[in-house]
Amino acid sequence: MIYASVVTIGDEILIGQVLDTNSQNIARALEETGIHVVRMLSIGDNAAEIRETLLGELSRADIVLTTGGLGPTKDDITKAVLKEVSGSNGYYEHPGQLEMVHSILKSRGLDVLPINLAQAQVPDKAEVIVNRLGTAPIMVFRGLGERKSTLYSLPGVPHEACGAIPAILDDIRAHQPLSPIFHRNIMVYGIAESALSERIAPWEDALPADMHLAYLPNPLTGIRLRLSCYPKEGEEGTQQRLEGQLQALEALLGPLCYAEEDSNLETAVGRLLKEHGLTVSAAESCTGGNIAHLFTTVAGSSAYFLGSVTSYAVSVKEKVLGVPADTIERFGVVSSEVAAAMAEGVRRLTGSDYAVATTGLAGPGGDGINPEGTVWIAASGPHGTRTQKYVYKNDRKRNIERFSATALDFLRQMLLSDLSN
Amino acid sequence: MIYASVVTIGDEILIGQVLDTNSQNIARALEETGIHVVRMLSIGDNAAEIRETLLGELSRADIVLTTGGLGPTKDDITKAVLKEVSGSNGYYEHPGQLEMVHSILKSRGLDVLPINLAQAQVPDKAEVIVNRLGTAPIMVFRGLGERKSTLYSLPGVPHEACGAIPAILDDIRAHQPLSPIFHRNIMVYGIAESALSERIAPWEDALPADMHLAYLPNPLTGIRLRLSCYPKEGEEGTQQRLEGQLQALEALLGPLCYAEEDSNLETAVGRLLKEHGLTVSAAESCTGGNIAHLFTTVAGSSAYFLGSVTSYAVSVKEKVLGVPADTIERFGVVSSEVAAAMAEGVRRLTGSDYAVATTGLAGPGGDGINPEGTVWIAASGPHGTRTQKYVYKNDRKRNIERFSATALDFLRQMLLSDLSN
Repeated sequence: MIYASVVTIGDEILIGQVLDTNSQNIARALEETGIHVVRMLSIGDNAAEIRETLLGELSRADIVLTTGGLGPTKDDITKAVLKEVSGSNGYYEHPGQLEMVHSILKSRGLDVLPINLAQAQVPDKAEVIVNRLGTAPIMVFRGLGERKSTLYSLPGVPHEACGAIPAILDDIRAHQPLSPIFHRNIMVYGIAESALSERIAPWEDALPADMHLAYLPNPLTGIRLRLSCYPKEGEEGTQQRLEGQLQALEALLGPLCYAEEDSNLETAVGRLLKEHGLTVSAAESCTGGNIAHLFTTVAGSSAYFLGSVTSYAVSVKEKVLGVPADTIERFGVVSSEVAAAMAEGVRRLTGSDYAVATTGLAGPGGDGINPEGTVWIAASGPHGTRTQKYVYKNDRKRNIERFSATALDFLRQMLLSDLSN
Repeated sequence: MIYASVVTIGDEILIGQVLDTNSQNIARALEETGIHVVRMLSIGDNAAEIRETLLGELSRADIVLTTGGLGPTKDDITKAVLKEVSGSNGYYEHPGQLEMVHSILKSRGLDVLPINLAQAQVPDKAEVIVNRLGTAPIMVFRGLGERKSTLYSLPGVPHEACGAIPAILDDIRAHQPLSPIFHRNIMVYGIAESALSERIAPWEDALPADMHLAYLPNPLTGIRLRLSCYPKEGEEGTQQRLEGQLQALEALLGPLCYAEEDSNLETAVGRLLKEHGLTVSAAESCTGGNIAHLFTTVAGSSAYFLGSVTSYAVSVKEKVLGVPADTIERFGVVSSEVAAAMAEGVRRLTGSDYAVATTGLAGPGGDGINPEGTVWIAASGPHGTRTQKYVYKNDRKRNIERFSATALDFLRQMLLSDLSN
């Protein structure tokens, strides 16, 4: 087993100004490669503290990854400490990173200052992986400390740190014997973790000894099931064995499964619509535009998403969506009838093949009849309209998110059923 | 100076499954209280690792805060390690937390199992702060290690951890002499950090020695300026001095300042509308529903937000919003004219006093004329319609967020100007 430690350097983390997302992204990538992260640390831009921490982590981990502290300003001192910790005698200029500094500043229309050129200087014991997304180099120091550990220094800017991860993993694989691991993901929505576990127990219990299933729940995307295989060195046909197990699992799950990779509902529904040349629209009350927002976060969604109406006021429900006033009066705003009329109204208005609608109470507070967290969802298509009530118990923000995800899944179920007929 | 260390316990963090947000929330609260966070650590549910880490942190910090590892299942072992580290001889049942366990499970309609009752058992050296949001108690251990440090053990569930912070701060204040600090926040939008710094330099340079200004930028909410005062013990009138400086700062900022507390644009615009009994609607193309979503994340927004139309397809712009086909043909979809017609269209459709509209290119890719990241924003009200073009250079998701925030601010500027006439 290879042990890793992840160290984030920067005062902005310690004062709570910036949320550290780098550590999670690095940890996830390492874990999926079969490397065990034993600690994550955040420390300030303080030379003594950085030195002590790095020496400590090098004594407990085979791989130490640091992010941050590499900026051109004088409060960024990681590089000087790395020079010392690695036993380097001086600095050298790395031509590849120097070229990148020039090219990046040019593309931003900025002059190249001496402070920028210094970014291409690295301690002489450092190997460099050129950072194509920023001016700070990615540095690699090998054979440090008693464990002969490897230290990777990554930039702190999140998209630069994330961008560096594949090259780091390649470098690790090239230098250390890593046991092979194969992963496959399945995304599931609309079932509680405990019920899912019960449903697939016979299959899970019968998994071969070298396979393991992980449940990774997320309130917005459902449950990610990750099936991992740790085959014997040199074994052939692992992918096929994994594929066979996956198919058996999917057969058990049926329409609960919405994707065969780490994904989300808006992408899965979008793919279904696009594949079949269908269009969609949305009418939103309590979700307040969030379903439209989710549809349109997917690049290329203009191929199938025509538009939406957020009908927060009753007058907009009536005037824009054409929900009859007496339907609202007889059944109340939070009702199956109003949800259905909203979906049918926006479908008529936009001319889309399908439509989804929500009306409910995100909170705080109920309406005297329905408790906070109640939502009626409707989906409407060429074969009719369906509605369903759900009740969630979260705060306003989380209720809006759950309502939206559930509405997307409700539409997906209608699409699957229509397309299979 | 009081030094603190924040330790997060749980395998789910180390494998990258869960993003640790507790540490940031705790660090921010401590920092604003004048306590210096020197390290944050995340470690796994491993007794030896927890013990070693706690002893290490107790030797370097006056206050150690842990979160997590307090669940009722057997993989949560923090409490057993705390018993050992604190030199407790056994456990006792805390009546207040026991009552809370019963009341919480009852409210969730669940039976009380022995595993739940064990949540109210704490090491005998622990003082308890009752956790009103969950079954795990908040524990306090005093006088640990050579520094006679205090250890606070908080639950790991984020809303429970956040909920515990005020009581922890009260406890710290009650037991340690803390230098008084006063903070005031001002929210600013629509100016770069460097330009802002230049603009207020004369004022900032003339600040009294016991006051300090911090710039806390956030792409979604602009720049939070935090003015802190560290007065001499027993000084009176600090609040008034701070207030005076704040007013001078606000005078320099004018309409760039949108709130006098840590806030966001949707809340600030909502407050303006509500105070003046005005209503609003939105017409969104490239922001795809996100502006409506932002408006409706604010509780009580139904008082002023009537609704919105997401007109992703050209046909919806024409048919629903009434944008003339020849306007689109002559000027293109991404144009001042179309933005204006969209804002006016949705204002007419919903009967709102004001409306805001966006049309642009969130990316990936431009339209051959406008580059990716271009947006035309329009605001329309009883005194007319204004438009403005902006170009941002982010990815799709971030562009949508920036477009939305800028549109809210553009509407705010119109409201301020209209209301001052």
